Amino acid sequence: MADQTRSLDPDDWVAFRDRAHKMLDAALDHAQGSGDGPVWTAVPDDVKTALKEPLPITPQGTDQVCDELLSRVLPYATGNTHPRFFGWVHGTGTPGSIIADTMAAAMNSNLGGRDHGANYVEQQVIDWVKTLFKFPATASGLVVSGTSVATLIALTAARYAKAGYDVRNQGLRPENGRLVGYTSTEAHSCIARTFDMLGLGFDALRSIPVDPTYAMDLAALKQAIADDLAAGNRPFCVVGSPATVNTGAIDDLQGIAEICQAHDLWFHVDGAFGAVAALSDSLKTRFRGIELADSIAFDFHKWMHVVYDAGFVLIRREDLHREAFTLRREYLKAAPRGLAAGNPWFCEYGPELSRGFRALKVWFHLKEHGIKKITDKVDDNCRQAAYLGALVEARPDLQLATPVTLNICCFRYVADGLDRESIDKINAGIVMDLQEDGLAAPSTTRLAGKLWIRVNITNHRTTLADMELLADAVVRWGQRAQGA
Amino acid sequence: MADQTRSLDPDDWVAFRDRAHKMLDAALDHAQGSGDGPVWTAVPDDVKTALKEPLPITPQGTDQVCDELLSRVLPYATGNTHPRFFGWVHGTGTPGSIIADTMAAAMNSNLGGRDHGANYVEQQVIDWVKTLFKFPATASGLVVSGTSVATLIALTAARYAKAGYDVRNQGLRPENGRLVGYTSTEAHSCIARTFDMLGLGFDALRSIPVDPTYAMDLAALKQAIADDLAAGNRPFCVVGSPATVNTGAIDDLQGIAEICQAHDLWFHVDGAFGAVAALSDSLKTRFRGIELADSIAFDFHKWMHVVYDAGFVLIRREDLHREAFTLRREYLKAAPRGLAAGNPWFCEYGPELSRGFRALKVWFHLKEHGIKKITDKVDDNCRQAAYLGALVEARPDLQLATPVTLNICCFRYVADGLDRESIDKINAGIVMDLQEDGLAAPSTTRLAGKLWIRVNITNHRTTLADMELLADAVVRWGQRAQGA
Repeated sequence: MADQTRSLDPDDWVAFRDRAHKMLDAALDHAQGSGDGPVWTAVPDDVKTALKEPLPITPQGTDQVCDELLSRVLPYATGNTHPRFFGWVHGTGTPGSIIADTMAAAMNSNLGGRDHGANYVEQQVIDWVKTLFKFPATASGLVVSGTSVATLIALTAARYAKAGYDVRNQGLRPENGRLVGYTSTEAHSCIARTFDMLGLGFDALRSIPVDPTYAMDLAALKQAIADDLAAGNRPFCVVGSPATVNTGAIDDLQGIAEICQAHDLWFHVDGAFGAVAALSDSLKTRFRGIELADSIAFDFHKWMHVVYDAGFVLIRREDLHREAFTLRREYLKAAPRGLAAGNPWFCEYGPELSRGFRALKVWFHLKEHGIKKITDKVDDNCRQAAYLGALVEARPDLQLATPVTLNICCFRYVADGLDRESIDKINAGIVMDLQEDGLAAPSTTRLAGKLWIRVNITNHRTTLADMELLADAVVRWGQRAQGA
Repeated sequence: MADQTRSLDPDDWVAFRDRAHKMLDAALDHAQGSGDGPVWTAVPDDVKTALKEPLPITPQGTDQVCDELLSRVLPYATGNTHPRFFGWVHGTGTPGSIIADTMAAAMNSNLGGRDHGANYVEQQVIDWVKTLFKFPATASGLVVSGTSVATLIALTAARYAKAGYDVRNQGLRPENGRLVGYTSTEAHSCIARTFDMLGLGFDALRSIPVDPTYAMDLAALKQAIADDLAAGNRPFCVVGSPATVNTGAIDDLQGIAEICQAHDLWFHVDGAFGAVAALSDSLKTRFRGIELADSIAFDFHKWMHVVYDAGFVLIRREDLHREAFTLRREYLKAAPRGLAAGNPWFCEYGPELSRGFRALKVWFHLKEHGIKKITDKVDDNCRQAAYLGALVEARPDLQLATPVTLNICCFRYVADGLDRESIDKINAGIVMDLQEDGLAAPSTTRLAGKLWIRVNITNHRTTLADMELLADAVVRWGQRAQGA
């Protein structure tokens, strides 16, 4: 028998260890200096070219790859670790997550099933989430990559629970009454995408109009359900938002829960970033009813600041959750003892069989900081958004889109004598200028047919002073654009 | 305005940095000592109890959490980093992935879209995969959490491409002819699960019988398609396996491709661990036809040894892939310049909007080792499995289930005078005993109604000597069980 090639382990562990420590220092420097320099730096053309090399056939070695990582990748991050990143709903991350992910990579656990330590850590996280949302101990949950997959799992369970026939074996049978669901026009697109993937179709998701606060109009919801029942369709779920992505509007979750109870519908909460606000002592009364949901999807990597990716699906009825997913062939059968023992096997609760140890960073984060400090930062962000709203209202050259209700402030630069189209164009330009300048990174959105600068604060490093810097800069760039 | 709480950054960066380095050393010690000690250690009851603490309200601090991680979590890993882990299809991981994941956590990039460095790294990985499988430069792909999600994406694209009506808007309409697909009885359960999630139903996946080598019987496949067409159903895809999970059987991919071409069906390859074998110079002739697939799903975290989780979906036609998933609302619109520029936005190619930087560890791994060294280890594992097969055949007290074709060897301990049930029981006991003893961790499976010890070698640390240790130990534990 011929000699074998060596393993993929380093030939020289001492040199490898030395290099790994240098890389850790670079990682920590990045975290410690998060507020230094620009929020975002465009990837230079020569770096883009360098990242088009042919497939590596032979080893380049650890040192060369590390050097390239430091010079070509690390300097061009998304920017969300910076205190003035306000674009989209990105979390900030924490240095603690760096430690947790380092250890998770070393353990290389697969949490699909079996009996080993990582599963007990995930079970601990699941139990904590039940406590957070006042769900019963008999509920179930799963750490997933994010709210999109969480929504896919929750609505698969909802479809199973409410179809009224054996949908797992037979597939969808619209002739039994088409399964239809409801969410507001302001709901996140992951709901529509889930309806598509599950074979229900976009058309089966009814877009319910919103009231002037951008929250779902519950009278319109009731009417839509009645219309569907009259038409022979089969309503099966309503999706409420504790915080919409455009404006942070809060649906009346209690009201939706009551409608769902009256019609035997599954009540799903799309809590991607908003669910954590419901955990804040100062905000929680506004989210009453979230504890009545049949399922909640939310992200740890957004307003809770665990690094990407980490989301969660919480489901009230473990039996329905498991029955909607279980599929254990011979090679996935549990044994009475040994490594193949253990229960539950998490692969029975979602689409993934191999499952990385993302639960570790969640566990680490909740222990390191405690939930109180995490929700205190949520409160801070809401105060910052309100402060920005006040700054905007105090200036005649800035206009607020809608009152700030949570952590999102949509506003724009305005000036006399400019038509609607010019104002849109100037504000789109301001946002791109701010990003390219590196001072701040807000995004844009459209509300009531107009373009707005959207400032979303899900950032534990942001301070009130950053709001002042931003408002001043928007006016400055606006005036410059107007003069141009 | 009241003072704000501090950020989630450490109060004392020097102490934090010191602790992070100590944790890195523990991570590297774990990797360097991967072959020391038992493969697997059961989680002690006191650790299980400790992992049931109440939800942390106040901070426990970095040091305490690190100490608990070292004492309660790290010692109880799954075992797949050990050279004698042969259970299920788990990859080994590498020390290089520890560095890559450390940096990914520090960057905390979100690869859903926009214009920043991480996306160029993922695009580089996608381009490399096209090269690996001889797909055209116009193909598309996505780094995902694993083959389960990759399959979901591939078959969503297949459904979109072949439905013959606007399935995204209208949902499934079985009255137009039920969409049906085909795979072998030995195919992995993620195919059936995907049929369920997509609303097609388990029944719509036809289980085609296998030949004596456990590969799909193509005559039976043709007959099943003909039967479905005659019955008014709408065949849309065939899923082939380059290596089945039970025995490593190889479907005739060229033959399946031809049948798909003749009937305008989508040809999907479930290459979870087998696809990498098609990249080996010494094995590739056995996988002819894989380059004709419409889509390939496979894992980097299995036989390619990137740490969990990292899989991939490769799709021949970028247009169909994108059209099956695109859904960009206002807050996801691209800008002409700044951070919101860039193309493609990966959120248009799969269910996830927020996407972590798992592409970094894949990029790092392929550069660090080169594809040749990675496929050399695949060859080694096949030689080891063949060697184990030879050892089994040389011993009267061991029996081989089926000839070793790849990296899987299913065998069992046998002895005169034992009935079928007793032999099953003894072998199930041997596997649990081996695991609890810590010497090795194979798994079990059932073939032809009998229980077999299943040795799956997707492990870059395994050597031929480990095969001898294993064969001897199985006989030893078998004799002990028989005597008991």
